[in-house]
Amino acid sequence: MTIAVYLPAASSTQNWCQMLGDLMPDWDIRAFDQIEDPASVTYAVVWRPRVGDLARFPNLKAIVSIGAGIDHVLLDTEVPRHVPVIRTVGTDLTQLMKEYVALHTLRMHRNLPQMQANQAASKWDAIVVPPAPERRVGVMGLGNLGAASAQLLAQIGFQTVGWSRSPKEIGGITTYAGMAGLPDFLAGTEVLVCLLPLTDSTRGILDANVFNQLQRGASIINAARGPHLVDSDLLAALESGQVSHATLDVFHIEPLPVDHPFWSHPKITITPHVASMIDAPTGSKIIARNLRLFDQTGSVPDLADVARGY
Amino acid sequence: MTIAVYLPAASSTQNWCQMLGDLMPDWDIRAFDQIEDPASVTYAVVWRPRVGDLARFPNLKAIVSIGAGIDHVLLDTEVPRHVPVIRTVGTDLTQLMKEYVALHTLRMHRNLPQMQANQAASKWDAIVVPPAPERRVGVMGLGNLGAASAQLLAQIGFQTVGWSRSPKEIGGITTYAGMAGLPDFLAGTEVLVCLLPLTDSTRGILDANVFNQLQRGASIINAARGPHLVDSDLLAALESGQVSHATLDVFHIEPLPVDHPFWSHPKITITPHVASMIDAPTGSKIIARNLRLFDQTGSVPDLADVARGY
Repeated sequence: MTIAVYLPAASSTQNWCQMLGDLMPDWDIRAFDQIEDPASVTYAVVWRPRVGDLARFPNLKAIVSIGAGIDHVLLDTEVPRHVPVIRTVGTDLTQLMKEYVALHTLRMHRNLPQMQANQAASKWDAIVVPPAPERRVGVMGLGNLGAASAQLLAQIGFQTVGWSRSPKEIGGITTYAGMAGLPDFLAGTEVLVCLLPLTDSTRGILDANVFNQLQRGASIINAARGPHLVDSDLLAALESGQVSHATLDVFHIEPLPVDHPFWSHPKITITPHVASMIDAPTGSKIIARNLRLFDQTGSVPDLADVARGY
Repeated sequence: MTIAVYLPAASSTQNWCQMLGDLMPDWDIRAFDQIEDPASVTYAVVWRPRVGDLARFPNLKAIVSIGAGIDHVLLDTEVPRHVPVIRTVGTDLTQLMKEYVALHTLRMHRNLPQMQANQAASKWDAIVVPPAPERRVGVMGLGNLGAASAQLLAQIGFQTVGWSRSPKEIGGITTYAGMAGLPDFLAGTEVLVCLLPLTDSTRGILDANVFNQLQRGASIINAARGPHLVDSDLLAALESGQVSHATLDVFHIEPLPVDHPFWSHPKITITPHVASMIDAPTGSKIIARNLRLFDQTGSVPDLADVARGY
């Protein structure tokens, strides 16, 4: 009964092994590169596993994604598709994401980047904005994270609309669904928040077509996955003024390469994939609970739909 | 029945005269410098009036402050103290203030200034913070603006505590009162938000004594009045690290003089007195309603307590 752990940074892997080991003293928990008998591994706990690593374990009962998304696991095309994938979600992760969304939506709404540029020039220039009830904010993706974020935005006072693949009902939020509902969702939206899962149908969804349907001068917040965004379309929309600012937590390549034009773009705010970053003390508790439950019952509420991709 | 209007900028004065005139066509509304017969003036609508101007009107029934505070009126020591002062408060102003408080509290909580400094250096450095329920935020001043702001902070998830001169009860908030309650309010507080009225007993309250009782590395947000803060004590606390960042919307002298050290301080964020800035379209509606009610009944709910100073 071995649990194999992998994260890109060796120090993080050791940290997670330690935390999980403290919580599950009756299990053998070790880093991928410490595994002597691959057949002994029944569970793998991973963040961005290397292609081919998971296929080495013939008796894998489940894979645990350290995070809410499973796309980083499915990038490994050699992973046997019949092995269940357990997502790591929890109150803390939802809390962290809704804080991030509230912070950056308010920052765009109150035009703080312009005020900070004014400060840099010692310039006192009062910027008057309408109150939040006169701003329309749209949240794409209404899973745990999206629904909680949309509800907080509505509590703050924003006119909040939501969009998802299949129809959803959320109190206080006007919702739209499917490609047919996209134009009505986008029309008049001034801040667009992306919290979609990454699937074949959402890859590249943040493109010129979507930007052009927003209110002119809208802002974009992407806290989902880098490949949702067509980088070149964003740069063009910032150049034309159709989009006034983008706040990005995720990128096609992470860490974002030092020579990437986003780093120094005055209309782009970069955060290093921390919107809802799980820390080992919090995450190991959730994962230990899920692994015990899955091992006893063969299922957990946080099971992903591998075929659907999230 | 003349209403005299004064704001420091002539263009603003004209704008307000126009807006109020549209809403109150049966009244004579004019700028201070267009008044021919001072005895005809029964009401004055003002923001930062010049010393001596209001004393010129012998038949003044009430003064309307364009804003929630009345300190800018009382700075004019020649204003007859028996003349009632009407504050301008409203849902929109409360909404704008609570947005400001939520934005800047979240910005401190998530350490966005450090992330922005990292972006300027093309540096990818994940900053992990605990979720809001593990942060204690303290709001000083529990009037309309303070109470609404504290409630939104609690909704976002922060451990929220409040402090006021006299005891108050607010759902979801632990409250403290008076100088005797101040140490318990400050102990463990990581973000301190000042929304106090400016009175003789609150002037200079944000001083070394208060800073030293906060959790080390706390942040300060002052959206009340500049004289609440002892500037030199703040600079010393930022230097020592006792305070890690300050977000200031108000200053001893406004606009903040271009040579003031706050402008270029890396640990100070400056916003130009816009936390809850009333715009003429919104404000003129509130003021027209209050003036009609006061003229008919001799009172309004938004009457200030001139003796108390707010």
